[in-house]
Amino acid sequence: MPQDTLNVALIGYKFMGKAHSQAWLKVGKFFDLDAQPVMKVVCGRDGAAVGEFAERWGWENSSDNWQEAIASDDVDLVDISTPGASHCEMALAAAAASKHVFCEKPLANSLEESKQMLAAVRKAGVKHMVNFSYRRCPAISLAKQMIDAGEIGEIRHVRCTYLQDWLVDPDFPMNWRMRAESAGSGAHGDLGAHSIDMARYLAGEIDEVVGTKKTFITERPAEGTSDGLTATAGEGTEKVTVDDASLFLAKFAGGALGSFEATRLAPGRKNHNRIEINGSKGSLVWCFESLNELEFYSTSDPGTQQGFRKILATEGDHPYAGSWWPPGHMLGYDHTFTNVVYDLTQCIASGKDCSPDFQDGAQCSAVLEAVNDSEKSGSWAKVEQIA
Amino acid sequence: MPQDTLNVALIGYKFMGKAHSQAWLKVGKFFDLDAQPVMKVVCGRDGAAVGEFAERWGWENSSDNWQEAIASDDVDLVDISTPGASHCEMALAAAAASKHVFCEKPLANSLEESKQMLAAVRKAGVKHMVNFSYRRCPAISLAKQMIDAGEIGEIRHVRCTYLQDWLVDPDFPMNWRMRAESAGSGAHGDLGAHSIDMARYLAGEIDEVVGTKKTFITERPAEGTSDGLTATAGEGTEKVTVDDASLFLAKFAGGALGSFEATRLAPGRKNHNRIEINGSKGSLVWCFESLNELEFYSTSDPGTQQGFRKILATEGDHPYAGSWWPPGHMLGYDHTFTNVVYDLTQCIASGKDCSPDFQDGAQCSAVLEAVNDSEKSGSWAKVEQIA
Amino acid sequence: MPQDTLNVALIGYKFMGKAHSQAWLKVGKFFDLDAQPVMKVVCGRDGAAVGEFAERWGWENSSDNWQEAIASDDVDLVDISTPGASHCEMALAAAAASKHVFCEKPLANSLEESKQMLAAVRKAGVKHMVNFSYRRCPAISLAKQMIDAGEIGEIRHVRCTYLQDWLVDPDFPMNWRMRAESAGSGAHGDLGAHSIDMARYLAGEIDEVVGTKKTFITERPAEGTSDGLTATAGEGTEKVTVDDASLFLAKFAGGALGSFEATRLAPGRKNHNRIEINGSKGSLVWCFESLNELEFYSTSDPGTQQGFRKILATEGDHPYAGSWWPPGHMLGYDHTFTNVVYDLTQCIASGKDCSPDFQDGAQCSAVLEAVNDSEKSGSWAKVEQIA
Amino acid sequence: MPQDTLNVALIGYKFMGKAHSQAWLKVGKFFDLDAQPVMKVVCGRDGAAVGEFAERWGWENSSDNWQEAIASDDVDLVDISTPGASHCEMALAAAAASKHVFCEKPLANSLEESKQMLAAVRKAGVKHMVNFSYRRCPAISLAKQMIDAGEIGEIRHVRCTYLQDWLVDPDFPMNWRMRAESAGSGAHGDLGAHSIDMARYLAGEIDEVVGTKKTFITERPAEGTSDGLTATAGEGTEKVTVDDASLFLAKFAGGALGSFEATRLAPGRKNHNRIEINGSKGSLVWCFESLNELEFYSTSDPGTQQGFRKILATEGDHPYAGSWWPPGHMLGYDHTFTNVVYDLTQCIASGKDCSPDFQDGAQCSAVLEAVNDSEKSGSWAKVEQIA
Repeated sequence: MPQDTLNVALIGYKFMGKAHSQAWLKVGKFFDLDAQPVMKVVCGRDGAAVGEFAERWGWENSSDNWQEAIASDDVDLVDISTPGASHCEMALAAAAASKHVFCEKPLANSLEESKQMLAAVRKAGVKHMVNFSYRRCPAISLAKQMIDAGEIGEIRHVRCTYLQDWLVDPDFPMNWRMRAESAGSGAHGDLGAHSIDMARYLAGEIDEVVGTKKTFITERPAEGTSDGLTATAGEGTEKVTVDDASLFLAKFAGGALGSFEATRLAPGRKNHNRIEINGSKGSLVWCFESLNELEFYSTSDPGTQQGFRKILATEGDHPYAGSWWPPGHMLGYDHTFTNVVYDLTQCIASGKDCSPDFQDGAQCSAVLEAVNDSEKSGSWAKVEQIA
Repeated sequence: MPQDTLNVALIGYKFMGKAHSQAWLKVGKFFDLDAQPVMKVVCGRDGAAVGEFAERWGWENSSDNWQEAIASDDVDLVDISTPGASHCEMALAAAAASKHVFCEKPLANSLEESKQMLAAVRKAGVKHMVNFSYRRCPAISLAKQMIDAGEIGEIRHVRCTYLQDWLVDPDFPMNWRMRAESAGSGAHGDLGAHSIDMARYLAGEIDEVVGTKKTFITERPAEGTSDGLTATAGEGTEKVTVDDASLFLAKFAGGALGSFEATRLAPGRKNHNRIEINGSKGSLVWCFESLNELEFYSTSDPGTQQGFRKILATEGDHPYAGSWWPPGHMLGYDHTFTNVVYDLTQCIASGKDCSPDFQDGAQCSAVLEAVNDSEKSGSWAKVEQIA
Repeated sequence: MPQDTLNVALIGYKFMGKAHSQAWLKVGKFFDLDAQPVMKVVCGRDGAAVGEFAERWGWENSSDNWQEAIASDDVDLVDISTPGASHCEMALAAAAASKHVFCEKPLANSLEESKQMLAAVRKAGVKHMVNFSYRRCPAISLAKQMIDAGEIGEIRHVRCTYLQDWLVDPDFPMNWRMRAESAGSGAHGDLGAHSIDMARYLAGEIDEVVGTKKTFITERPAEGTSDGLTATAGEGTEKVTVDDASLFLAKFAGGALGSFEATRLAPGRKNHNRIEINGSKGSLVWCFESLNELEFYSTSDPGTQQGFRKILATEGDHPYAGSWWPPGHMLGYDHTFTNVVYDLTQCIASGKDCSPDFQDGAQCSAVLEAVNDSEKSGSWAKVEQIA
Repeated sequence: MPQDTLNVALIGYKFMGKAHSQAWLKVGKFFDLDAQPVMKVVCGRDGAAVGEFAERWGWENSSDNWQEAIASDDVDLVDISTPGASHCEMALAAAAASKHVFCEKPLANSLEESKQMLAAVRKAGVKHMVNFSYRRCPAISLAKQMIDAGEIGEIRHVRCTYLQDWLVDPDFPMNWRMRAESAGSGAHGDLGAHSIDMARYLAGEIDEVVGTKKTFITERPAEGTSDGLTATAGEGTEKVTVDDASLFLAKFAGGALGSFEATRLAPGRKNHNRIEINGSKGSLVWCFESLNELEFYSTSDPGTQQGFRKILATEGDHPYAGSWWPPGHMLGYDHTFTNVVYDLTQCIASGKDCSPDFQDGAQCSAVLEAVNDSEKSGSWAKVEQIA
């Protein structure tokens, strides 16, 4: 159902709520849209806090009752930016109310929930999208175009590492991301999910995996207060119930071999989401820490002049880049979120399907779960293919 | 006169107008401010176009009569983001109307105009700031902190290059940036001004210079239409009346030697604004194409472990960074503008002086002009020191 | 038995024979030695060719009968630089003749042979060394010193990739390296062996592995002629009987997790032997393609100044570097071989044990074989610990 | 006069003597030569020391009387690797004795001497070469080929920096390199000469220059003992009589603009000999600290795929590389010297002229001297063109 405005209800107002809000705020400024997003309402458990957030960011209303808020007739799209444990309930409610759904990754903390969510949005006939935002880095979108155009030939190797170091300090206190009940897993679902999605996007489906996870620091100071960016400890300690690191090997349906590693314990790696793909005719390399650069090696270049080429994906004819600034005027983390909601808005406005959608989210969950299965069995595990 | 809101009138709505608008839009979202900017009015010559721009970006009003608009009682600050040729007239009018003035760089196309502007704002007793935005890259602000703390000792070498390539194609058509009457100069004032300001910020005043400029491509297709990002040619050709490139050597008051080069004809360099500083105890290196990174070498590191350290200036305790995202979540070009208007807003709200101000702008003009003098005489030229 | 000269018999005169010859030629020039190597005899199957090689490189004699040559009374050390399939027979013969043995990696094409070789040299009481030359890159030796000094704390992650691209072209013809009977394995034993040794050197023993190998290009043009560097095809095709790529995960005895990947099919990666180690207090990164550089991140650096430090390991007090050139005068591939034979010569001269020795070689074989076991079983495999 | 052997007399046995010796030792091993160099005699002032050096490096004889030694009938080539102050006398003597002459750079400490030397070798009709060794880095030779093939079009910008840091420590004691009478100049002639030669090689002649030099640390601890690599101070202090740093701008005959900077006071820069060239169709960048890499940007690459390409100049069809090792097996500092004497030997063997020859050496001196002239006059100085 094409439409001219898109009334958005956002649930969550912490790190992700902020990232989504800036995207909704900016998208209509930088992009020509077929529908104008309206920042209708933001929801959160703490009424006062979410009220302040709404005022700051320009949401028309705020609510401490998301169920009620999203059911309102003047809401077209529910944007879920809460921790993974709540995604399923929210998405099901949104679908039941016939709202389009935009959901943070991972789609859910389990494959089972992911499948329920996929079924619900399909049944409701609403648009659905999962926020694997890195797909919308211009350099990654460009990589996709180049792979589809055959620039690197048949893919043989996929090498993904997503490394951070924010938990290296054993005195860093607990928060929801280190509890299984809220986060589902640690680096595995938080970081690994991004790598899996990017690998699927660029190199196709994964058939089989074998892997392991580990919690190196098993106990931490109790949670204290946090402003979302910095945290202070409370009294006592708490057991960490998620992994610090996850590693697995993968066999792709197309014949490629892959290796994946996610950790929060790699000193100096701040947001080192890196992928390298080797094909029969060339290679592509990207890392978020230099997000505007795509490295490309082509065996088609003249013999003595072959080399990894560092493409600054900021030219006017690079994906998304032309809507921002002139060449060489770098984009950052938040621009990718704006690019995402641009595509989301255009899809809803025109009635087209979104990508990546909940099927992609569920398929990512299936890979995560297969790694868990492999860990239990100590051997290779088949990845369920979600229809 | 401390105040709670800050009513802004913007003049100009092209590339810089867009960059300023996004900054005013976002600053109150990401930063805690002592005064709330209000996007009051945007001015431009084409009433219809500026009207559309105002609507898109959320400016309350638009006007094709900037003189009238800025004189209005409900304007506190005039934000000048037009080409340099108009800066002086606008700043003088703003000062005459007792408005604070925020002006794009270069402050003016001549030292004479810059001095007039400085005199006017001083006489009016208003706040004034010039938008040398690169000072507000967190990595550069960090460099300043480190230099002030003595981390690299006494500065001996300053090495600035600002390289672009957007004029390499001889078929790229004319625009105002290639005409002396509108732009004053080419790479010299456009790019060199940034390098000069950054060098002054980090290494102090320049005493003497010797240099040269050159126009390699002396004629171009006539100007056609442009959307600010891409341009199509008109009929016939036009003579280029500004430089493509500018190079000069400098002697600093503090004893350091400097070299400066600005060009629009360096294939592959998109926005390569780079500075390297060597001191008696260490070195610092930065380039806008990797704007979040500051390279630092310290002779104080243990002997066998010395090396250039790549600091990702995205930690919570790095300048500005804590107001944006968690560590490793990169910032881009536009974030620096938002950082600038944050400082500007806080200064006006609290009655403090801004930095860099029109004196800095005029001093930068004095260096640019000394290079011109040197070019004429073929020998070293003294830089006028602006009190 | 300390000694003043060291009479060397070299077996093999192709790529490795050349690399060893230059090391023996240069070692006494750059290093102060306790014994002077004498280039006594070089052995090969083609008498004429090995004769030419001997003359060119200054070997006193040549022989097409290695058994006879190495048994000679005037030979102290047998240097085996032939393909892996012949190592065992040669090392056993050398040990039987009470000669010290220096052997190219991998020690042998099977664990079984490696163990025989280890037993033989131990029984004979001779010195033995395996040429894992990358240990002697100054940057890697420095890394070892730093790890031993606790600079990066307890090791948690080891990330090894050894990527080449010389087999990407499907028309590249067969040679001994693609035949199981001569090479044992492909990337696995050729490249993976280097990674395993480096990981063991820097991070300790590996307990368990899980992995897989793959031959992407299963048939190639028949072998033609080659000068050791470039090859031309013969008529017809031949089946490739070794792997193109090998990947495995590892659990270290000390608790670290590792990932290993070796391939000859990564376009643009020429000799990309890379290792990254993350510890509880810092990280180290090295890649042979920038062999003189060691990257080091320390959580002990001041908070706002932490970053990966690129140490140029060419200072006079860096390992080996002081014997070569002043700081900043880069070393290359062959210098590492010279560093190896320096240590070998000094150990023999002084009666000390060499490192890495045949136990290290056999332990590396044990890891390679455990990966093969894991491939067969599809599950994690224990690594045999060689006493 | 083509010949089968080439009898070499080397004068000097310190840093450069060692670098030349290793080249003569290795060249016949790695390269196929039309004449075989014979390491006939090495000369030095300290008879005992030079005797030891001769024995170590395999020179047949040693002498403390170079005049006598080079006049010997069994000497074909005089290789001068002493400090610049002695070059002229030695080259004149060699030419007078009708010997070919190979001379370290700078050709002499003054233009006057350089011209005398050029006249002498021309008159004698002997071959002459000056050791600007960086021309023989495979990556630089490749750059030359690419420029000659028009890959970057018409050259517009040349940017040279040669940065070192070995004099940053004010306690580093005096040696001959800091005395005008022995070294002529400091960074200017030592480092700047390399940059000038490389710029001339790649971008053609320089017409005019303007520049300055500076001695930041004017007094140092007296010279003590040194082994050529590390130095200890003697008693008292001594005045430094050469520059620490030299900067100049240049106008090339072909229309390009250049900037040059040489310093020994750039912390962290160990041997940072860097050149960037921007042409009308592309750019090339090289730095000795990554000597095997040539960066290349081409405007001929497909629009969205343009980027700086990092060419590893180690392929078999790259200059010189095929004589060394397989692709990706890095070369170092000393390999360039061996490449030089390969070309030198082949030229003499075949009767061809060498390049760079004494004319190149003298032209380099002319540029150095023009900078000195400019410094005195404070204005642009014409460069004498040596016929």
